[in-house]
Amino acid sequence: MAYDPQNIFARILRGEIPCIPVHEDAHTLAFMDIMPQADGHTLVIPREPAETIFDLSPEAAHALIASTQKVARAVRAALEAPGILLAQVNGAAAGQTVPHVHFHIIPRRGGEPLGLHAAKMEDAEKLKSFAARIIACLDSN
Amino acid sequence: MAYDPQNIFARILRGEIPCIPVHEDAHTLAFMDIMPQADGHTLVIPREPAETIFDLSPEAAHALIASTQKVARAVRAALEAPGILLAQVNGAAAGQTVPHVHFHIIPRRGGEPLGLHAAKMEDAEKLKSFAARIIACLDSN
Repeated sequence: MAYDPQNIFARILRGEIPCIPVHEDAHTLAFMDIMPQADGHTLVIPREPAETIFDLSPEAAHALIASTQKVARAVRAALEAPGILLAQVNGAAAGQTVPHVHFHIIPRRGGEPLGLHAAKMEDAEKLKSFAARIIACLDSN
Repeated sequence: MAYDPQNIFARILRGEIPCIPVHEDAHTLAFMDIMPQADGHTLVIPREPAETIFDLSPEAAHALIASTQKVARAVRAALEAPGILLAQVNGAAAGQTVPHVHFHIIPRRGGEPLGLHAAKMEDAEKLKSFAARIIACLDSN
């Protein structure tokens, strides 16, 4: 399927829609999920326009995992999370809701139920406070 | 925590325990999950001894995502899966049961419940038939 340049992440990458960023580099952008499945739930996306992992160039996949690894380390530290789930879904049948490839970084604690689907919008101020803590941990890691 | 060289994936890498492989290269090994969450559930591991994504070198992370991308493409084709979930869990609190970093490649179809935890052992002959189909798709992709 052709890449949809009007998807919400493409618009975030172009600065047409705001996000709460925690990290960006030449090839990737990381920002807070506005419908988090857990406190600190962060997304990492490549700048390359690709709907799924299957459409992504090897170079962009490398940049994406490097950035995910770096940001996940900061999320873990900032949230003092004993567990971290990395999830990346491809296709509506797998739960993909935005057609631009993305990694979920989700702090996990024993016994919490797992949910990947968007549920409710989180308070922006709360997301910004998590972002600030994650950014502080990025700088120190 | 120190890497446990007796974990089951380390033993599979050393050839001390059998697995049903679908792909291997200098840096990674991919094989069938013996307690699959869906038909075609495949695991990809780095040869580098690392408990979690946080312990993995950038070079090994690159090799791991490249191999995961390649094998996931074959799993999707072999299983004719409309969706593919990539999941990578770190820490017991996130559901990690084997202390060697691994990516799950899980075919997904609309409406199926998601489960990442090991449940029951699958029939080896059935796993081998999935592996043969995945290998055939690796060769043709």
